[in-house]
Order: sequence, then C-alpha cells, then structure tokens
Amino acid sequence: MLFHVKMDVHLPPDMDPDVRADTLAREKAYSQQLQRDGKWPHIWRITGQYSNVSIFDVASNDELHQLVSNLPLFPYMDIAVTPLATHPSDVKAG
Amino acid sequence: MLFHVKMDVHLPPDMDPDVRADTLAREKAYSQQLQRDGKWPHIWRITGQYSNVSIFDVASNDELHQLVSNLPLFPYMDIAVTPLATHPSDVKAG
Amino acid sequence: MLFHVKMDVHLPPDMDPDVRADTLAREKAYSQQLQRDGKWPHIWRITGQYSNVSIFDVASNDELHQLVSNLPLFPYMDIAVTPLATHPSDVKAG
Amino acid sequence: MLFHVKMDVHLPPDMDPDVRADTLAREKAYSQQLQRDGKWPHIWRITGQYSNVSIFDVASNDELHQLVSNLPLFPYMDIAVTPLATHPSDVKAG
Amino acid sequence: MLFHVKMDVHLPPDMDPDVRADTLAREKAYSQQLQRDGKWPHIWRITGQYSNVSIFDVASNDELHQLVSNLPLFPYMDIAVTPLATHPSDVKAG
Amino acid sequence: MLFHVKMDVHLPPDMDPDVRADTLAREKAYSQQLQRDGKWPHIWRITGQYSNVSIFDVASNDELHQLVSNLPLFPYMDIAVTPLATHPSDVKAG
Amino acid sequence: MLFHVKMDVHLPPDMDPDVRADTLAREKAYSQQLQRDGKWPHIWRITGQYSNVSIFDVASNDELHQLVSNLPLFPYMDIAVTPLATHPSDVKAG
Amino acid sequence: MLFHVKMDVHLPPDMDPDVRADTLAREKAYSQQLQRDGKWPHIWRITGQYSNVSIFDVASNDELHQLVSNLPLFPYMDIAVTPLATHPSDVKAG
Amino acid sequence: MLFHVKMDVHLPPDMDPDVRADTLAREKAYSQQLQRDGKWPHIWRITGQYSNVSIFDVASNDELHQLVSNLPLFPYMDIAVTPLATHPSDVKAG
Amino acid sequence: MLFHVKMDVHLPPDMDPDVRADTLAREKAYSQQLQRDGKWPHIWRITGQYSNVSIFDVASNDELHQLVSNLPLFPYMDIAVTPLATHPSDVKAG
Repeated sequence: MLFHVKMDVHLPPDMDPDVRADTLAREKAYSQQLQRDGKWPHIWRITGQYSNVSIFDVASNDELHQLVSNLPLFPYMDIAVTPLATHPSDVKAG
Repeated sequence: MLFHVKMDVHLPPDMDPDVRADTLAREKAYSQQLQRDGKWPHIWRITGQYSNVSIFDVASNDELHQLVSNLPLFPYMDIAVTPLATHPSDVKAG
Repeated sequence: MLFHVKMDVHLPPDMDPDVRADTLAREKAYSQQLQRDGKWPHIWRITGQYSNVSIFDVASNDELHQLVSNLPLFPYMDIAVTPLATHPSDVKAG
Repeated sequence: MLFHVKMDVHLPPDMDPDVRADTLAREKAYSQQLQRDGKWPHIWRITGQYSNVSIFDVASNDELHQLVSNLPLFPYMDIAVTPLATHPSDVKAG
Repeated sequence: MLFHVKMDVHLPPDMDPDVRADTLAREKAYSQQLQRDGKWPHIWRITGQYSNVSIFDVASNDELHQLVSNLPLFPYMDIAVTPLATHPSDVKAG
Repeated sequence: MLFHVKMDVHLPPDMDPDVRADTLAREKAYSQQLQRDGKWPHIWRITGQYSNVSIFDVASNDELHQLVSNLPLFPYMDIAVTPLATHPSDVKAG
Repeated sequence: MLFHVKMDVHLPPDMDPDVRADTLAREKAYSQQLQRDGKWPHIWRITGQYSNVSIFDVASNDELHQLVSNLPLFPYMDIAVTPLATHPSDVKAG
Repeated sequence: MLFHVKMDVHLPPDMDPDVRADTLAREKAYSQQLQRDGKWPHIWRITGQYSNVSIFDVASNDELHQLVSNLPLFPYMDIAVTPLATHPSDVKAG
Repeated sequence: MLFHVKMDVHLPPDMDPDVRADTLAREKAYSQQLQRDGKWPHIWRITGQYSNVSIFDVASNDELHQLVSNLPLFPYMDIAVTPLATHPSDVKAG
Repeated sequence: MLFHVKMDVHLPPDMDPDVRADTLAREKAYSQQLQRDGKWPHIWRITGQYSNVSIFDVASNDELHQLVSNLPLFPYMDIAVTPLATHPSDVKAG
C-alpha cells in the first residue's frame, strides 16, 4: 500500500555541529535500510529546498507512522502524508 | 530529468455526457501512450479525490509543458509542477 | 485500518429538485449500508455547515477510494482524507 | 455533546529531558483518566505527525475548555475545536 | 451555552428578484423570532461586507445546527461556528 | 460604536514565572476596569484556545487603539479588529 | 475617523453591456460626489488589477457601511475594511 | 523601471470559439508589439500552467497599469505586480 | 509616483531596552524627516496592531527600496509594497 | 533551461556580526561568479523586502539544486523554484 510523504527539514541554525553530523548520519543509514527493505521505494530531493518527496510501501497506517516517527530527523521536520490508490489509467496496474 | 506533477480535475457538473466520455477516453489513451514511452513513469490516484500525483521523465521544461498542455483534460485541471533532483540518500543513485 | 474523512457538500443552487432528491436518497441508502457493513463506523455533522466528519474502517487505500468515489454526492463534494494510526495513550489499544 | 478536537504538539527542541518526560507522563495519565471517565471517547494519532484527532463528550463548552486547558501539554499545542451534531444518515442515531 | 457564528452571504447576481425578496423577508422574520426567543442574543453587520457576526445561546450543538440550517439563506451562506466559554476575567461571570 | 476584537495570546514557554504572574494580574485588572467602565461590554474565551473574542464600545478608532495597545499582554498577542455596524434585522436596533 | 477600504471588482464576463455601462457610470458619479463631500478623501488604482485602495473619512462604522453598501458595484466587489488610527510619528498629527 | 508581472489566464470553458480565437490573436499581436517596443523585455510560460511570468520596463506605475489593463485577456486574468529594484550583487548594475 | 506600503513590526520580547528605545527614536526621526521631505505623505496606525499603512511618493522603485531598507526597524518588519496608479474616478486627477 | 527562483532571506537578529559580514561577502562573490558564468542571468531585488527574484539557466534540475544549495545564505533562506518554458508569444523565441 503506497503513501506519498513530503518532508521539510528545519534544523536550528545554532545546532551543535557534532549532534547535527551524527543525526544526519543516522538519518541516512536508517533511510537507506528502509529503501533496501523495499519499504521506501522512492526518495527525491525537491529542487532548491531542504525537503524531499518520498513514496512508502507499507502494510498499514500504523506501520507507516512507526517508520516515519523513528526517523532521527523527525523532531525537526514538517511531514505531510497522502494515501495513494491505483490510478485507472496506470499501465502497470493489473 | 524528473518532475512531480499534481493534477486536480474539475469537470463542470453540466458537461455534455458524450463530450465528457470522449474527453476521458482520449485522456486515458494519451496518458497510457506517454507511460509506455517512458515519459510518464508513475501515476497514482490521491485517495478520495479526483486528483493524481504523477512523475514525468523528460529532457526539458519545454518538453514537459508540451506534454502536459496537450492533455485532453488540461482545460479542466489545476496543475502544480515541482522539479525533482537526486536525493543524496537515494540507494539507487550513483 | 482507520481513515478520517472530511466531506464538504456544494450542491448547485439551480440543481433540478428531482435529481437532487434522488441523489440525496441514494447517498443516504449507500452511506447507511456501509455503516451497517462496519466500513463507515462514525459519521458526524459539522455544526452549522453542510459538511461531515467521518471515520472509515477499510483494508486498504484502494478500498477507501472505491467506497468514497462511488458516493452519489462525490461529484459535488470536496473531500480530505487523513490516515489514522493507533495513539499510544489510547486505553482501548493493546 | 460531541466535539472534534485536533491537537498539534510543538515541543521545543531544547526542552529539559526530565521536564519533557514528566510532562508526557502526566499528559498520558490525564488523558487516560478522561478516556476511562467517558469524557474522551476517541483519540487517534495522525499518521506521520506529532498530532492527534480526538472526540470529546462533554456537557458544555465550559466543561470542554476546562478539560482541554488543563492538559499538561496545553502550553505546547495548537488546538482546533469543531462542534459536532447528529448526522441525519447516522444509523446509530435515534 | 454561547456560540460565535460568522455568516457570509453570497447571492447569485442573476437570482430572480421575487425569489430574492421573498427569501430575505423570510430570513428577517426567522431571525427576529429567534432573537425574541433569546436564542440569538446578538447580531452585528460586518462593516463594508454582506456578512454578520452573531452570538447564539442554545442548549446543544444539535439545537444550534437545527436553528442555523433552517435559515432561509442557509444555501447561500458560508458559515463558521466557534464555541465560546466563560472568560476568567469576565466581570459578569460568577 | 462597536468593534469585534479577537486576541490570541502567545506567551514564551520560558517566561519568568513572576513576570508572567504579574503581567496576567495587571491584564485582568485592566480588563475588568474597562468592562466596568462600559468600554469592553463582552469578553468570551474561545473554547480550547488561549484566545478571546471581545466586543469594545468606544467613541473612535483612536480610542480603541489606545485601549488595546495599553493591554499588559499587548506585546504577546496577535490582534484582529473588525468594525461592526447595526444589522437591519437586529430587533434591538431602531 | 479614517478607514482603509480595499475593493476588488469582479464583473461577470457575460454581463449585459448596457447594464454594465450604466452601473459603471452610476458608480463613478456616486464616488465623485462622496469625494467632493470629503467623505472619500483618497482613491487609488492598484497597478495591474481591477481593484482600488481608498481612504474614507466618516463619523461612524454605521455611516461607512451605509456609504459602501450603496455603491452601485457593491454586489460585484470583495471589500475589506481596516480602521485607521493616528500614528505617533505622523508629523501632521497634533 | 522594472516590474515583475505574473498573469494566470482563466478562459470560460464555454467561451465562443470565434471570440476566443480572436481574443488570443489580438493578445499575441499586442504583446509582441510591446516586446518590440522594449516595454515588455521578458515573457516566460510557467511550466504546466496557462500562466506567464513577465518583466515590464516602464516609466511609471501609471504607464504599467495602462499597458496591462489594455491586454485583450485582461478581463480573464488574475494579475500580480511586484516592483523590482537593482540588486546590490547584480554584475550588470553600476 | 505613489506606493502603498504596509509594515508589521515584530520586536523580540527580550530586546535590550536601551537598544529598543534608541532604535525607536531613530525610526521616528527618520520617518519624520521623510514626511517633511514629501517622500512619505501619509502614515496611519492600523487600529489594534503594531503595524502601519503608509503612502510613499518617490521617483522610482530603486528610491523606494533605498528609503525603506534604511529604516532602523527594517530588520524587524514584514513589509508589503503595492504600486498605485491614478484611479479614473479620482476627482483630484486630471 | 530557465528557472524562476524566489529567495527570501531571514537572518537571525542576534547573528554574530563577523559571521554575518563574512557570509554576505561569500554570498556576493559566489553569486557574481555564477552570473559571470552565465548560470544566473538575472537577479532583482524585490522592492521593500530582503528578497530577490532570480532567473537561472542550467542544464538540469540536479545542477540547479547543486548551485542553489551551495549558496552561503542557503540555511537562512526560503526558496521557491518555478520551471520556465518558452512562451508562444515570445518574439525572441525561434
């Protein structure tokens, strides 16, 4: 089941550089593990912004919330979730 | 080069049924041809709305505008285009 | 799996009275059948508005879209869907 | 009498960890007591956000304000209240 | 129990003059009856707009919705309801 | 001459408790004096929010600005002023 | 007493040309009479829009509403009123 | 003196085809004459929308309003004007 | 050439009192000098807000930006500029 | 390929003056180098605001994101990117 997730990152300008570097490293590792597990099939940077548009593939709303709320950057992000359904014109659909 | 395109369809309630059916049939055929050509790799329905989120893969802004403005539903849609870039955490990139 | 659905109804002032009455009767019958089937466990009127807040209980985004887009009033409504997850303080959970 | 209450939590990133843990523990205990008392029949997490949608069942606007403004997280939340009425299609209504 | 109700009137420019005059006359009579009954203690015109701000005094959300949705102008209005509570500095309270 | 004034209070979470208590005490005394003077005939709490809706009765815009800008909480509030006129359906008018 | 009034004109594209010409002629005459009477000391066109920003000088909110609601274009305009007070840096003030 | 002008075109779906074709032909001729005169140095299509972003070079606000309000599409457009000044980092300035 | 300028002041609550007093004194002197020079013919307080609406009379966009960006309060203000043109109904024009 | 980029700068009022001066100097040098390289053909100040409107000329979305995200002021800016296409009325277009 697919969800469209938009994430806008707002890091405080005075964030401790070590905390920042560590948070970003953990974010990247966590994201890439979910991508390899097939839970996070697409992630794109929004051009010109510290934001991304992502597609998640999960079994339930609860699983999606558990995955997203464990993101190391979660406390620093505005997140909007849009549930996606099959489009009747999709050539890849059944 | 990828673009995120959100399309919201607003058909007039009093649209002639034949015009409506013909427009929708041409829209579907046009969309599916672009999908098969690799120009429109993803199309998803936004759950609960007469809207879609799509990803286009084109060579330029001009090509994208030419493709989108030729959609049979173009006069009936609100369209928002967001240019996408490679995300540094994308496991499929480089 | 629960979804929060807000529906705002906009009927044209000059709608044919018979079409209007028939559409509303079919909407009510359809809604009540889904309520009896357990798919639509809650529906509330927003005080002072021709709008409702509803909770749907479905197996997937696709099922939700299929149910909502078949509403007789669907062409006359603005609809916003919010996916819901279990709250960690919910005494009914776990 | 039912009210729809949406709560968005905004904790300062530099909040003292002990104050934070204590506030959250008191919030949970307070919320669960109101749920057990039948004043707060539903609480759902908004997927992907530090927010909830709740239904309160109270005797008056004054009682609702007294309950909500005593939430330990009240100073850290944006709150929107929508009064709910019986929907004429509700199969559970008289 | 008090509610703040803002009503914005949007009459179609091509409304039949007799229907318009009749609707406005019934609206005025209905409003003044509710005012005399004590259900609608205040009504003010918003300066420069075809809008009003009103205070209703009712026993429940259901009563408020029943009163407001029976307004002859209801199909032509955008309406926003805000539940009011006693202010702790109100010299008339307690 | 009546004005509708909406005030949203935003106190900094780290405000000194003594300054806060003193400011609130002065705000209450100032507000109640204006109420007793007939300048501030109504004040209501917006249910669930640290906000109020008030009606002021003053001789001029200048008097209203002088009264409002002297509120001890003025530096901490977002304030919106709407001038009110007599409604033609008001049974208390004329 | 001064008020800032912004007016946005929305004439229907299919308005009868004679009605349109007559309405605009009456609007201009009415506006110029109020300007000559000193009630409407300033009127400016917003560059690039069918809108104006005006300053009215009236004795009360009721007088302002009476003047504005009698504008021949009133049914075709969105109007926003902002009450103005003396600025403490105004060299023309006392 | 430069101005940034954004124009969004909204043609009625039921516009007479001859009127439409004639209006668009006159719009194009008028726009191209102003471009050749140096008054309208840049015009770009917003990708995916029936909108443009333009730069005008005029002697005054009055000249800009006269040019823009004479556009054949003026009654069908939403227009936003932003005055531009020299940027201190512009290598072409000074 | 006239411009409508709206300025909203946001001073930090913890601003040093001496810096604050000095900034406000310089702002007032600067504003009054421009008023006396005829560059700033009108300044009004928005009733109930720490905001003003002003009219500037300058030779160009560049001159306006230079005047406004030198305001001592510039770093603390949200500013919106609207270019004004002659209104065809203005009795003072032509 | 052209892109319209709007940048709004928000420097913290308490930014260290040396850091500020150094950041601004590096921003100017970086911007001017891109201008000289033909990547950034236009930059205009928005009159009355600490903002600019720019036109970038790049080969791809990725190149644009790389150029913009390396701006020394990037952490302090809100940035909006709009892809531009050739306008059919542009006299400079083929």
